[in-house]
Amino acid sequence: MSFEVTILGASSATPTSTRNVSAQLVHLLGRFFLFDCGEGTQIQLRRFGVKMQKINYICISHLHGDHYLGLMGLLSTMSLLNRKKELLIFAPKGLESILNLHLKLSYSVLSFPINFIEFNTSKMKKIFEDDVFELFSFGLRHRIPCWGFKLLEKQRPRHVLKDMIEKHKIPYSAIHAIKSGKNYTTECGQLLRNESLTSKPYKPRSYAYCSDTMPFDNLIDFIFDVDVLYHDATFHSNLSEKAKSTFHSTAKQAGIVASKANVKKLILGHFSSRYKNLDILKQDAKSEFENVDIAKEGETWKLQKTYD
Amino acid sequence: MSFEVTILGASSATPTSTRNVSAQLVHLLGRFFLFDCGEGTQIQLRRFGVKMQKINYICISHLHGDHYLGLMGLLSTMSLLNRKKELLIFAPKGLESILNLHLKLSYSVLSFPINFIEFNTSKMKKIFEDDVFELFSFGLRHRIPCWGFKLLEKQRPRHVLKDMIEKHKIPYSAIHAIKSGKNYTTECGQLLRNESLTSKPYKPRSYAYCSDTMPFDNLIDFIFDVDVLYHDATFHSNLSEKAKSTFHSTAKQAGIVASKANVKKLILGHFSSRYKNLDILKQDAKSEFENVDIAKEGETWKLQKTYD
Repeated sequence: MSFEVTILGASSATPTSTRNVSAQLVHLLGRFFLFDCGEGTQIQLRRFGVKMQKINYICISHLHGDHYLGLMGLLSTMSLLNRKKELLIFAPKGLESILNLHLKLSYSVLSFPINFIEFNTSKMKKIFEDDVFELFSFGLRHRIPCWGFKLLEKQRPRHVLKDMIEKHKIPYSAIHAIKSGKNYTTECGQLLRNESLTSKPYKPRSYAYCSDTMPFDNLIDFIFDVDVLYHDATFHSNLSEKAKSTFHSTAKQAGIVASKANVKKLILGHFSSRYKNLDILKQDAKSEFENVDIAKEGETWKLQKTYD
Repeated sequence: MSFEVTILGASSATPTSTRNVSAQLVHLLGRFFLFDCGEGTQIQLRRFGVKMQKINYICISHLHGDHYLGLMGLLSTMSLLNRKKELLIFAPKGLESILNLHLKLSYSVLSFPINFIEFNTSKMKKIFEDDVFELFSFGLRHRIPCWGFKLLEKQRPRHVLKDMIEKHKIPYSAIHAIKSGKNYTTECGQLLRNESLTSKPYKPRSYAYCSDTMPFDNLIDFIFDVDVLYHDATFHSNLSEKAKSTFHSTAKQAGIVASKANVKKLILGHFSSRYKNLDILKQDAKSEFENVDIAKEGETWKLQKTYD
């Protein structure tokens, strides 16, 4: 019942000797999402032992190279490994034309179909769902069109209490209805209330990815109450003018966003290459919000289950 | 007086956990050439401590992704570092349109000019020269249009014998003529023959890069007598049918080419990811040619000076 985020890269603009550019793998109940795909992402996936064919969905926030230049290589390797399964790519307009030009000039055809879905609004929009999740995009405020993503787990069914099922010899065929909240009447006519047969499921978990953005009011509404927020923290607040002019955030501003949006945990990312020791960015954010972590390559954050 | 080749990557098709895709840096007397630029090349340059702004010339052999997908990221980083110096890129037709599409969609302008020079013949052709080198391209035989490169050092001037210059109090203004082979007459009218004032320069050195190719007769002429040859050795000879069908070479075939072309040293590269231990490829080539090395990332081969 996992919901976890693994950082593959969190350097802004250019890789450093110790940090790769933006990419992260999100795993929710057997679904694998890649949020951004900077150069070297396929190398990072191998490095951290991730089977790249597992990836079902790729979301590209914007068309600055440090967020998508690893995509062509990743798709090419998936094809060499003879992937057949469709891949869904959510991306700004234009990425499909880049891919098609690369394929044409290399006289190549991928071994699997891609379904490109382009963003067409900066408002919060559900762009995909299945029976366990909903995926939303929303416009960020950056130098070029840029989107953030929110992944919401759907409410899980109630948890069946096995010992009660055995005690009352309830047949398998009745379990689905019980999970969905129905009472059960035994063959003897005894009414068993659902509350006695099941326990409440954990609260749906949620994650938001805001890679490149300056702060803006609507952002708080977009990401309100998420469990974990990954947020642009390119600069320390002593470079707030630089952050503003490049349409990025300081770590302190990320802390303010996390605080206002009532999130549980903040992961800082997209660090300027000038910061060798990232602890000063953590302290900068901590002045506004307590539960802060630094995005480190290869580290995984598990979203905890909580109950009402 | 260096002429040296540093391997940045020699994996074919896809990176492995220990090998990056094709790229190598060649340094000749202060000129820096990048031969191919697979994904992750800028990361390798950083890893091996190469100052990327030194690169003057980039030669892209062909438009399979493992040979050029690192170019956009490298150019972007050069621009972020505020490069001003012109970069010459020798490439197949189409690469410029890819770069322009990337720049357009990222609303970006590079900080420096690029002079794109497209290959227009599969014959041996001098594509650039300055006072110390000549650079040639020649068609290889691969699935898609593909070129190899030959870098020839020009004949160096004769080496002036300092003790003779001091002994005869020869003025600085006369040195240029003496280097070019002229005799010198002292103020007292004594004729000093050039042979007594200079020593013979070393023989011009040469290097050839043949990344993706199956063997073909003309190749021997193209690369005849080079000091060092880097050659496609994607497969062991027990997969010669696979090599043929994918328009690659076996290590043994690379050895045959090296032998026929009378080169001094053969560096094997472009290895299939199936080979964990590359020694079997070395042995395969050694059955035909003795002086064989395996391209290892971060290793540098210095081309030795020899004299007639």
